[in-house]
Amino acid sequence: MWQLYQFPLCPFSRKLRLLMGEKNISYELVRENPWEERDEFWALNPAGRTPVLHDPEKNLTLCDSRAICEYLEETVERSPMINGTAAGRAEIRRLTALMDENFYGDVTAPLLHERMKKRLVLKQSPDSRVLRDAMRLVHGHLDYLDWLIDNRAWLAGPTMSLADLAAAAQISVVDYLGGIDWRDHQQTKRWYAVFKSRPSFRPLLGEKMVGIHPPEHYAKVDA
Amino acid sequence: MWQLYQFPLCPFSRKLRLLMGEKNISYELVRENPWEERDEFWALNPAGRTPVLHDPEKNLTLCDSRAICEYLEETVERSPMINGTAAGRAEIRRLTALMDENFYGDVTAPLLHERMKKRLVLKQSPDSRVLRDAMRLVHGHLDYLDWLIDNRAWLAGPTMSLADLAAAAQISVVDYLGGIDWRDHQQTKRWYAVFKSRPSFRPLLGEKMVGIHPPEHYAKVDA
Repeated sequence: MWQLYQFPLCPFSRKLRLLMGEKNISYELVRENPWEERDEFWALNPAGRTPVLHDPEKNLTLCDSRAICEYLEETVERSPMINGTAAGRAEIRRLTALMDENFYGDVTAPLLHERMKKRLVLKQSPDSRVLRDAMRLVHGHLDYLDWLIDNRAWLAGPTMSLADLAAAAQISVVDYLGGIDWRDHQQTKRWYAVFKSRPSFRPLLGEKMVGIHPPEHYAKVDA
Repeated sequence: MWQLYQFPLCPFSRKLRLLMGEKNISYELVRENPWEERDEFWALNPAGRTPVLHDPEKNLTLCDSRAICEYLEETVERSPMINGTAAGRAEIRRLTALMDENFYGDVTAPLLHERMKKRLVLKQSPDSRVLRDAMRLVHGHLDYLDWLIDNRAWLAGPTMSLADLAAAAQISVVDYLGGIDWRDHQQTKRWYAVFKSRPSFRPLLGEKMVGIHPPEHYAKVDA
């Protein structure tokens, strides 16, 4: 069986878990805190990042969340998530990258640093200026998602795709860390509520990062 | 014809140009300085980054260098660069991401900031501490490439792939900015010399970023 190296608030591992859930691929979780820089983990992945997907029987190790998603897309037919014409697939990959790189860099990474790593590892207080900047930038990103949802059934087009999974994964981590004010983003809120009720999402919402408590609405499907 | 929005030292545009050169796809260059944040450019790409590949006749805009490479790989058969088994393709994509994200973040991005953006845009002196850190980190990355080349014909396996193009693109920018001490990296140096002599690479080596001069060895094929 696949072993998935991850920690509960890793947005890239969440994206992969959503994909594996939708494709009905079973796996067991292996807890990995990449900030501990374990030698054995760096030997598996020279990038030192989660997720890593490892099959001990086949002696196969896959790294980089997008490379892993492409691999699963190529090898498991069920629930295709990078689908359609070449231009449609490019749009799915563009939005996935926008979430993985821009949204992550502007919003998820600073929130993870200030509200998770400083509390659990560095034993420091969060920097309110950094938090304020991230929570200002999240609005621009959610405005863009609102606009996409106004114009399309799903983020990248007529069907659910990896772009939706990538966005839901980032948003779920930021929502856990109290970084989203939903009031001005009704379209994204409705889209996200649909996601929260999917069987692939339920296990994520039930999981906690010890020492960090999500806001009350976080795991509620109708909130 | 394709229009490629880029600036001469953008490593992601270089990767794409190498791929288009290998595949013999023609394009015209459109100069774009993403740090100027032109509204028209942000309208093309909400991520605000180069490269963007635009076909005015088909009204098709492609963003994100990896998404564009996948699109060209799917639509142009010649010189496949994401080839082989699913596991082999995952290895190509893993190494491409390692260069695009880790090498870029550790080495190329700080060098571009200190030696290009500070000179041309911010009119500041480079921070020698940041430069020293980047030039220390580059050795670890080149050690890993040395090791790959000791064990494989090309970075990701028996044939040239997108991983080689991604690595050559990052290295060429860092080499232009004087950031590579080649003495301890003979394997990567030999591999890179082969690359420099390829027809796809010659146009890049001949191009200059006005106001920034590369070291003498930069464009020499045998140095």
